[in-house]
Amino acid sequence: MTSHDPVPEIPVSTSAGVCAAAGFTAAGVEAGFKTSGGLDLALVINAGPEFAAAAQFTSNRVAAAPVHWSREVVRAGTVRAVVLNSGGANACTGPEGFQNTHTTAELVGQELGIGAGDVVVCSTGLIGEQLPMDVVRRGVPEVARALAAGQDAGRRAAEAIMTTDSVSKQASASGPGWTVGGMAKGAGMLAPGLATMLVVLTTDAVMAPDALDLALREACRVTFNRTDSDGCMSTNDTVVLMSSGASGTAAEQGEFTRALTAVCHSLAQQLITDAEGASHDIAITTVGAATETEAEDVSRTVARSNLLKTAVFGNDPNWGRVLSAVGTTQAQFDPDRIDVTINGVTVCRNGGIGDPREGVDLAASRAVDIVIDLKTGDARATVWTNDLTHDYVEENSAYSS
Amino acid sequence: MTSHDPVPEIPVSTSAGVCAAAGFTAAGVEAGFKTSGGLDLALVINAGPEFAAAAQFTSNRVAAAPVHWSREVVRAGTVRAVVLNSGGANACTGPEGFQNTHTTAELVGQELGIGAGDVVVCSTGLIGEQLPMDVVRRGVPEVARALAAGQDAGRRAAEAIMTTDSVSKQASASGPGWTVGGMAKGAGMLAPGLATMLVVLTTDAVMAPDALDLALREACRVTFNRTDSDGCMSTNDTVVLMSSGASGTAAEQGEFTRALTAVCHSLAQQLITDAEGASHDIAITTVGAATETEAEDVSRTVARSNLLKTAVFGNDPNWGRVLSAVGTTQAQFDPDRIDVTINGVTVCRNGGIGDPREGVDLAASRAVDIVIDLKTGDARATVWTNDLTHDYVEENSAYSS
Repeated sequence: MTSHDPVPEIPVSTSAGVCAAAGFTAAGVEAGFKTSGGLDLALVINAGPEFAAAAQFTSNRVAAAPVHWSREVVRAGTVRAVVLNSGGANACTGPEGFQNTHTTAELVGQELGIGAGDVVVCSTGLIGEQLPMDVVRRGVPEVARALAAGQDAGRRAAEAIMTTDSVSKQASASGPGWTVGGMAKGAGMLAPGLATMLVVLTTDAVMAPDALDLALREACRVTFNRTDSDGCMSTNDTVVLMSSGASGTAAEQGEFTRALTAVCHSLAQQLITDAEGASHDIAITTVGAATETEAEDVSRTVARSNLLKTAVFGNDPNWGRVLSAVGTTQAQFDPDRIDVTINGVTVCRNGGIGDPREGVDLAASRAVDIVIDLKTGDARATVWTNDLTHDYVEENSAYSS
Repeated sequence: MTSHDPVPEIPVSTSAGVCAAAGFTAAGVEAGFKTSGGLDLALVINAGPEFAAAAQFTSNRVAAAPVHWSREVVRAGTVRAVVLNSGGANACTGPEGFQNTHTTAELVGQELGIGAGDVVVCSTGLIGEQLPMDVVRRGVPEVARALAAGQDAGRRAAEAIMTTDSVSKQASASGPGWTVGGMAKGAGMLAPGLATMLVVLTTDAVMAPDALDLALREACRVTFNRTDSDGCMSTNDTVVLMSSGASGTAAEQGEFTRALTAVCHSLAQQLITDAEGASHDIAITTVGAATETEAEDVSRTVARSNLLKTAVFGNDPNWGRVLSAVGTTQAQFDPDRIDVTINGVTVCRNGGIGDPREGVDLAASRAVDIVIDLKTGDARATVWTNDLTHDYVEENSAYSS
């Protein structure tokens, strides 16, 4: 039983990603960034005939070098390639870090015969270490040689961007005559603005940069921007969308936005499900709010309560911790009218004791559905998060050492 | 080596609490609120000759019944008794909960021959359950009979308000001819505004309610309000300060505020040190900020980063997680100029890589001192927090079940 925000009812496949749309090739290789080994350098190429693009970046004011670089690349509305490395965030690395990003883009441009200014660069990994440029110089020609079309190439690219992710994340959906697909990485530091995550989205629909930008903003607003794993916003978040126009079909804006939203929703759900150490996926939906902004604020505040998140880990439907978090917001509500429903049981009614909490069996399922009714207006918003577990503490206390 | 905000250099004793000042009696008894047994009902009486008082309460809009009651009591500037129970928060309990608080105050008033309107009521424990009123009716006469002066009575009251606290918390300090003392409880849900905590402060100085209020606001501002254990604000926070005037000595306002601040600082430090499952006490000091408000905002944002808190648990001086939290604030700074010092080592210089992080040995001490220099202005503020550990998850996932 779920009560969270409706998602576009469009079939989404999770077996194909950035190569689902025509006009794209991809590759993933083991360049040597990760000391643990494994694929760690990915490349996604738009072969055209069109090269329209849009992107969203972290709103963290301490942004990584590749974010500064890629913001400028996307400004022109044209992107021909995205190169992504795991095993190093290239954040807080100063002028040398920016130069390393620039060099990476130039190396990719040389291999592909395109300008460096059309190459988006994404990095993920530990903050505060310089990228090993010998690995970049060796890896870029190798990943360029490996470029291929088809599901397998897309899957290898999706695997190469994983850090603490336990599985790769892909999704795709189709409209009349066109397809949109994508891949994502991220398994912690998932927070506001965007989650710590890298996402590459591709489509063969014929779309102008402005139309892509509009669709991407709307899709991110209700998916990635409402995914909040641990309240921590990354320095490297990037979501880039490229259109090849290879289908020759112009997509209707609303239809495209719905398909893109469905793909982003699937990727965001895959991120939450794979969040570091999580044992429950929690959808927190605030209804009856005065505005959607207030609904989102209430849901996000509850999603960030460590006390609620540990209670859910303990399979305890502790609605008092929901209310004490709601009470810290500035949303319009009367504390004596709030209802809280957990997995369909109204455990809190009119701000007080409702049906017995024993009626909720959180141990029975991974999904937890919390609905907060403010009884003030008609607005609603869902924020997705997960529980706070021993494994979260373990993974994040051992990450850089 | 510490760099956090200076604390008034006044000797503070932790062996005496609410009975350190003349004119106060106290008691703690086992009434039966706690299913686990132990002292769980406390009473602190101001025997006069004066009954001036001031208080601070949680800013959580979902406030518990005793908070609603006590706000009204304190409005008149007069308090003669504070009754406190552990083993039940009486929050989210509706009209019946408020009636139960009212009844508790009336029972205390009857026992002591004072008006119920002069009795502050505090409760702490699980949210969303009615207080067992048979226990209240049996316990109040018992705790009134046990009232006594002296250190031992104060200590028993401090023990009776413990919930998940592992030790009781007391502090006292003296000025010329007068004394101020107090007790506190709280070991989690320590957050903004006030921490989840109950604090009773007493003084025998001759002080008018307005003077007490002024001193209490200033003392709370730089102590309890900058103690942020897990970012969760409670429904029940109460800090109440009573003056008996029994010393016959009027305290100078500045001198009294400094002594009160020293007592509150000691109690706040005892709360942080005993925070649920903590293995490190972390002082996060932002210096070089444009305003004190911005300094506090930066320090608090870093104090709430689960990623930083788990890193410290893992003895990892992960300054990248400090910077990524700083970047989410609206404070004035240039990301390329920020320095971060951990236990005296400048691990981040000008927003980039500083001295080797290997030079910081977090395993060597419980205290962790993080200093963030924004290099923008002259303002500074310290926020105290602790690390996020397996024991935090354990205690909070098992709390109500």
